[in-house]
Amino acid sequence: MPKIVDHDQRRKELADAVLRVVARAGVNAVTVRSVAKEAGWSTGVLTHYYGGRAELLLGALRRAAAITQRRFEAARGADDELAQLLEGVLPLDERRLALNRIFLFFYAEAATDEAVRAEIAGYLANWRTDVAEAVERAHPALDAVAAAATLVALADAVSMHAIFDPAVMAQLRAASPVPGWLELITKEASIAG
Amino acid sequence: MPKIVDHDQRRKELADAVLRVVARAGVNAVTVRSVAKEAGWSTGVLTHYYGGRAELLLGALRRAAAITQRRFEAARGADDELAQLLEGVLPLDERRLALNRIFLFFYAEAATDEAVRAEIAGYLANWRTDVAEAVERAHPALDAVAAAATLVALADAVSMHAIFDPAVMAQLRAASPVPGWLELITKEASIAG
Repeated sequence: MPKIVDHDQRRKELADAVLRVVARAGVNAVTVRSVAKEAGWSTGVLTHYYGGRAELLLGALRRAAAITQRRFEAARGADDELAQLLEGVLPLDERRLALNRIFLFFYAEAATDEAVRAEIAGYLANWRTDVAEAVERAHPALDAVAAAATLVALADAVSMHAIFDPAVMAQLRAASPVPGWLELITKEASIAG
Repeated sequence: MPKIVDHDQRRKELADAVLRVVARAGVNAVTVRSVAKEAGWSTGVLTHYYGGRAELLLGALRRAAAITQRRFEAARGADDELAQLLEGVLPLDERRLALNRIFLFFYAEAATDEAVRAEIAGYLANWRTDVAEAVERAHPALDAVAAAATLVALADAVSMHAIFDPAVMAQLRAASPVPGWLELITKEASIAG
């Protein structure tokens, strides 16, 4: 019997290999050759699954988004759901560092490519919706949509600034800023409400 | 007498032309040819001042940073100094839209180029310092460094999300979020203080 190759599974494995390269050495280090080596495959087999570097990077973006979405779903209903949704994107470990680097790369692509822009806008809108629903469950007195926009903006910008500035990264890794953000948002409610 | 050409002045004029092209049509539209046309010069003269597209973009980044810095200095001591420092970077008009687009382009470059990363980190650190000093003047009871980090992150991320998402941009242009951010920060102080 011929060996059954799970095409989707292989694409996932290769996307994971891209993310490992990105975590270790940055987006610049991603090439067909480096990813093939990381995955332990030949470049010939790799190009059966991804046409080239651009497709590998797009595959890694979607893989990172899917992993994050699955973690968001797993956090649903947890006591610290909201904190998990925000800390889930901070570059606090290698996985999330890769996530941030790959998103940052596509943020720039989004500035010049309409299809990428729409895809990135969709991810951000989903994230805001998930956070808004978590805010609604945890703090029903709050304007959930406004609070979610603030929290998502904070998490996204602080992550990006940490990638640019080792001092910000050190600060971030020394102590999560998320409890402070939640306090900020909640204290407003306790006055306004 | 020979005509005296002010080299710095010409470089500024060309950088301004790049920013106009970026405001109108995005970073993708920047080429030696399009900028020469915008400035009303020949490409031959242009390349006497900038070696090519990459140099033009870097010149525009530095020009945008310098213009913003000058506006920050002009705002110093004004009643609404803090609001000016934050609204100064929101893409609320064509000038600031170009500023945001050019910074976003270099954010991505920063992810893969050490010199660019250091330059961007420097701009962000300066911005945080300026905002922290304004917070200190306006709200002495606050932790100025922490408040500045929050405010700068909010302004930067909301600007970026507005570039990706027309709905966020429409919201931003309908009403500045800055008064709400300052209320958020200040209300925390009125409880903590």
